Amino acid sequence: MVPVSKICCLLLLLVLVGTVQAQERKRAREYGLKIGILPTGKNNAITDVPGVKVGHVTLTTGENVRTGVTAIVPHASNLFQEKVPAAVYVGNGFGKLAGSTQVQELGNLETPILLTNTLNVANAMNALISYTLQLPGNEKVQSVNGLVGETNDGYLNDIRGRHVTETHALQAIQQAKAGPVAEGNVGAGTGTVCFGFKGGIGTASRQVKPEQGGYTVGILVQTNFGGVLQINGAPVGEELKNYLTEQMKAKADGSCMMVVATDAPVDARNLERIAKRAMLGLGKTGGIAANGSGDYVIAFSTNPNLRVPHNAPEKTQTVTLLRNDEVTPLFQATIEATEEAILNSLFKAETLTGRDQHRIPALPIDQTLKILKKHHALQP
Amino acid sequence: MVPVSKICCLLLLLVLVGTVQAQERKRAREYGLKIGILPTGKNNAITDVPGVKVGHVTLTTGENVRTGVTAIVPHASNLFQEKVPAAVYVGNGFGKLAGSTQVQELGNLETPILLTNTLNVANAMNALISYTLQLPGNEKVQSVNGLVGETNDGYLNDIRGRHVTETHALQAIQQAKAGPVAEGNVGAGTGTVCFGFKGGIGTASRQVKPEQGGYTVGILVQTNFGGVLQINGAPVGEELKNYLTEQMKAKADGSCMMVVATDAPVDARNLERIAKRAMLGLGKTGGIAANGSGDYVIAFSTNPNLRVPHNAPEKTQTVTLLRNDEVTPLFQATIEATEEAILNSLFKAETLTGRDQHRIPALPIDQTLKILKKHHALQP
Amino acid sequence: MVPVSKICCLLLLLVLVGTVQAQERKRAREYGLKIGILPTGKNNAITDVPGVKVGHVTLTTGENVRTGVTAIVPHASNLFQEKVPAAVYVGNGFGKLAGSTQVQELGNLETPILLTNTLNVANAMNALISYTLQLPGNEKVQSVNGLVGETNDGYLNDIRGRHVTETHALQAIQQAKAGPVAEGNVGAGTGTVCFGFKGGIGTASRQVKPEQGGYTVGILVQTNFGGVLQINGAPVGEELKNYLTEQMKAKADGSCMMVVATDAPVDARNLERIAKRAMLGLGKTGGIAANGSGDYVIAFSTNPNLRVPHNAPEKTQTVTLLRNDEVTPLFQATIEATEEAILNSLFKAETLTGRDQHRIPALPIDQTLKILKKHHALQP
Amino acid sequence: MVPVSKICCLLLLLVLVGTVQAQERKRAREYGLKIGILPTGKNNAITDVPGVKVGHVTLTTGENVRTGVTAIVPHASNLFQEKVPAAVYVGNGFGKLAGSTQVQELGNLETPILLTNTLNVANAMNALISYTLQLPGNEKVQSVNGLVGETNDGYLNDIRGRHVTETHALQAIQQAKAGPVAEGNVGAGTGTVCFGFKGGIGTASRQVKPEQGGYTVGILVQTNFGGVLQINGAPVGEELKNYLTEQMKAKADGSCMMVVATDAPVDARNLERIAKRAMLGLGKTGGIAANGSGDYVIAFSTNPNLRVPHNAPEKTQTVTLLRNDEVTPLFQATIEATEEAILNSLFKAETLTGRDQHRIPALPIDQTLKILKKHHALQP
Repeated sequence: MVPVSKICCLLLLLVLVGTVQAQERKRAREYGLKIGILPTGKNNAITDVPGVKVGHVTLTTGENVRTGVTAIVPHASNLFQEKVPAAVYVGNGFGKLAGSTQVQELGNLETPILLTNTLNVANAMNALISYTLQLPGNEKVQSVNGLVGETNDGYLNDIRGRHVTETHALQAIQQAKAGPVAEGNVGAGTGTVCFGFKGGIGTASRQVKPEQGGYTVGILVQTNFGGVLQINGAPVGEELKNYLTEQMKAKADGSCMMVVATDAPVDARNLERIAKRAMLGLGKTGGIAANGSGDYVIAFSTNPNLRVPHNAPEKTQTVTLLRNDEVTPLFQATIEATEEAILNSLFKAETLTGRDQHRIPALPIDQTLKILKKHHALQP
Repeated sequence: MVPVSKICCLLLLLVLVGTVQAQERKRAREYGLKIGILPTGKNNAITDVPGVKVGHVTLTTGENVRTGVTAIVPHASNLFQEKVPAAVYVGNGFGKLAGSTQVQELGNLETPILLTNTLNVANAMNALISYTLQLPGNEKVQSVNGLVGETNDGYLNDIRGRHVTETHALQAIQQAKAGPVAEGNVGAGTGTVCFGFKGGIGTASRQVKPEQGGYTVGILVQTNFGGVLQINGAPVGEELKNYLTEQMKAKADGSCMMVVATDAPVDARNLERIAKRAMLGLGKTGGIAANGSGDYVIAFSTNPNLRVPHNAPEKTQTVTLLRNDEVTPLFQATIEATEEAILNSLFKAETLTGRDQHRIPALPIDQTLKILKKHHALQP
Repeated sequence: MVPVSKICCLLLLLVLVGTVQAQERKRAREYGLKIGILPTGKNNAITDVPGVKVGHVTLTTGENVRTGVTAIVPHASNLFQEKVPAAVYVGNGFGKLAGSTQVQELGNLETPILLTNTLNVANAMNALISYTLQLPGNEKVQSVNGLVGETNDGYLNDIRGRHVTETHALQAIQQAKAGPVAEGNVGAGTGTVCFGFKGGIGTASRQVKPEQGGYTVGILVQTNFGGVLQINGAPVGEELKNYLTEQMKAKADGSCMMVVATDAPVDARNLERIAKRAMLGLGKTGGIAANGSGDYVIAFSTNPNLRVPHNAPEKTQTVTLLRNDEVTPLFQATIEATEEAILNSLFKAETLTGRDQHRIPALPIDQTLKILKKHHALQP
Repeated sequence: MVPVSKICCLLLLLVLVGTVQAQERKRAREYGLKIGILPTGKNNAITDVPGVKVGHVTLTTGENVRTGVTAIVPHASNLFQEKVPAAVYVGNGFGKLAGSTQVQELGNLETPILLTNTLNVANAMNALISYTLQLPGNEKVQSVNGLVGETNDGYLNDIRGRHVTETHALQAIQQAKAGPVAEGNVGAGTGTVCFGFKGGIGTASRQVKPEQGGYTVGILVQTNFGGVLQINGAPVGEELKNYLTEQMKAKADGSCMMVVATDAPVDARNLERIAKRAMLGLGKTGGIAANGSGDYVIAFSTNPNLRVPHNAPEKTQTVTLLRNDEVTPLFQATIEATEEAILNSLFKAETLTGRDQHRIPALPIDQTLKILKKHHALQP
């Protein structure tokens, strides 16, 4: 007979091993991948843009719930009273993004951004309204434009159960913090699938050269799309024979939400141009923006001189803006950071079993590294 | 000395007269207004387009709740399984319309349309999801694009209370019916303000000539916007000295939701063109699409040959479409019906007192008719 | 036998009578029409916006040539080196406007605007390139984005003859001047048709209140479109029984080019919003933006603080911009001025006989005034 | 002393060697590059789409003229009378594309497409008008929407001389033929620069699987843009240290015109979606759509069932269209073919010296192949 204490020890060991294995998955760059030519910010994360915070709430209850919500908070003040310039670019509009038209019309953002699953956009929108209405100073606010993106995690998650509540979404906002950002199976990325592998949340950042302004561009992605995976140019999808197959089709046909933050002084027009470039980064990973893929990019600037007061005594606002001629480095930064953020989501996400015992394997690190080495896609 | 009973009788009489007077408010055409050159459909309503149904839920609880929700249902079958071609045109994007990008990308609509107040869009979106998920045949549906429009009724309504629930929105769908449509202070129009007068729901329709196809165009509007009111060209706003004043500004700065239905065989591209024309109808009433006015037009075709099956064994679909050259009569019809629908909302809406004793007067019929007569704007 | 001198006298007399008759046609406001609620600028013309100049070259050679070209010059300096913020809004894209995508992408305009007929857009574009290349300071310029609009004057003009040359277009730019603007059958409006009557060039302006910034909005239109004419709300088209008939269809199916200038400090995003409002002014005249009507609006700001240098040592530019909340008066001004500019084109244009003896009557002033009086549409 | 005859022989030899070397440059696939997973069409060219023809006129007079014009003709019939469904997507609008708004509004194309240099768009537009007016059956045509794209070849070409005439452009149309397409320094690609190397015209095609319809997608590109060159994923630009340097900036800041043809039965809406995907192909070569890069995609369908008659007795047209769900393979095909077409332009273009002795080297084949081998980017 085995004593209980031994069983406990064994179970604890298993848990620890599991944890250890999980912890062992590293970010793309830690394996030697260097995407592009620009340096990263300190944490290689959207939070490298000063003031930006990220919060996740992850739901993995029982066998069928594999979902969550992620909040991106542009700055620490009352965002409704001090809006930020923003733009939305619709790469492929098969999605349920809420709040885009006001951002496009007025050129600014007045709430945090929430990402979640397709059928919980409304709950997240309610959270943004509740959050905004209760903020000190917003007692008379009667109109709130919440910006909520989503991808469909219905293969692994009981999406019809609509498990992400307003409360969860509020928690994501409240827990948002600066510094390193959790990636992989967290928050809105908990149940997503990317190139037939487990996708999730990924992030990355780039810094443009000091003589070009030294600005930071940070990206956060929720990856749930398909195509033929390329990693730093290497044909990983082809060599793993894991792409666009009939069997993959249903799963791969997801979406990709991309959020771009920068401290560069760019207005809504140039932010839209920056947003468009994120699609090129998605393309470089082998994404094809399939018919069923809702691919959206949200871009905002945290530059303090561009904050838009909700009310102001003056009829005009004086702002300092980057000239059109100077935005190209930001385009380059956006493309690189998007590519790397998507890869980070794949490298960090773990194999997951969810709804109806559906199982999506993680990107197999060993095999992948072998392919990357063969193609000289890793740093020496 | 007058006995109390007599006073009571008198008061009762006054109340009844008041009620009767309220009930007596008639549609624009009943006062002799003839807008444009095309004939109306049978009920001069969006429901003249065969299959289209409208449902209202009106909330007027206590002193502060003056709001509601209106459903427009394109056809009686499972709309998710048999989508209709559709388009969204953003006249002025200062609004919270949800669901627009998928309609624009795929060119179709898969849920009823709901209109409500600004802060209850999310609840209405949840209702569309719940409604769709539970329909027989939709057991495996994991993605629903609900289309929800809104205007801000916060002057008369306790909008921060967010009183329109998912249940109310579901009721509006369930109660939707063909035939005459209630107008004025009903449904999503319960608490709205238009040109400084009480606005609300309005509807109208037009029929193009048999030799041009004999199609019907029907419109439903939720009016909550400002400008300088013109009725059939007569300068009513100017003569009533009730326009764009400082005092009016806050109230007038609303929005207008316009829904256009037609049985003409037009695809998403030409539906977008039709949608654009509704803005010209709004302009003819004196609307200016002010900065704060979220003016959106949704257009769909109920033509049976254009229904889009959610799943189909065939890879292609054969459709018969109106040629570009033939759409002009539909443009004319849309402009006329939009103008008249807006006027109907004003003629039918009654004076309303709501939140914090805010009171918005109805369009004064007698004075208005006097002005219209002076300008020969009424039929003899 | 009649002596030559007598024939000459007779001909001279006829010419003079013609001239006198022509001179007698007045602008809408001179007949007592007051459109809207805002005051006009000094000349009620686009040139009321400081710095804006207009030039026309009119071609009426022989029996068949009835066309021309009109230049709108935003400021007197080298426009390529000092670009102005600008936007283009496509009301209905059945037209050949050249240069729109760069204006939309970069938010600025680097050449004068030319209007001409449909088949001479290329010659006008060549003129803008030649003009720009030869300006002192532009010796190294290798890329020029000319903005050219057009309407189709083929009913009255031998349009296939493509009579507007690069030289004519250059003359229009060179002859551009401030002050009153010729209207009616001049420049690009020489051969156009509007509501079945002779159309042409029209202009108007509005001033917003001093407390709202006191800005000027000026419009110039080239009218060549159809619908059911309304003048200040009065149903002139219906009462003259001159609208949308089969016989009218071919002629009426034209286009409308609208150019909006303002000195208000608004960037490309708000200029696009302003441009959109011009369509509401067109709608108020009874225009319906028919399928065949290419209706475009170009808007630019001459505000000196917003000039965009082609080259600059600095990477950023500091600008003072009107806040979103303050643009509504500019919308009102745009709608009013567009309506009046279209009416001016009709009131000023004279009956014209052209290609193949095609004849288009001028708006009949007497009958029209009678209708306007009946409807109390004239100032007392 | 060397006799003249020997010098002549030597020179002849050098010329022949040069010619041989030039002839030796092969297409990407001939070097072992296999881009993507789909098979090519017969000629791996846009002309694999049945009916499509391409014609080039190349101008290399004297030392400074290095330019030309390329025509893409969708079908052999009168294109004005039998238009084809078409779309334009603006990847980055810093360019002078003419004719886009009508294509976008009406969803069709009525002329061949011409590509040329920036300052000769107007001459090419005139050619399209002349060509269309003189076609038998077009005697009454009064409106022609020519579609002309461009990139700026001003580094190698005396672009200010505007050497491409209407005659040259007409020749390109007349010389258009089916079968293999000349690439590199021909037609509109004569003087262009791409990734710091000589760019030019490139083409490629893909066939989707028979069970997905077996459709062909063909692309033709005019490459004149910059970024960090990747060839089949290999970092060629980085390893050649030839990217985005200050020295490169002026040259690299060009544009890319992409023309997509397909025989798949897709309407304008889905053609626009296809067009959008070409940008992902551009991204995969390392293109970044820099600020100064005018990146445009034109897409059309030659499917006979979709031809749009200019006049028709019927008010409707019956068409068979691919369902949204079935377009993904066309997206994949477009991305792959665009990537390969861009590479073909680089592999085929030869070193060129032009204006003011400016010289742009061809992509160095040997070094490039070495890099590709190292990265296992070539087929074994």
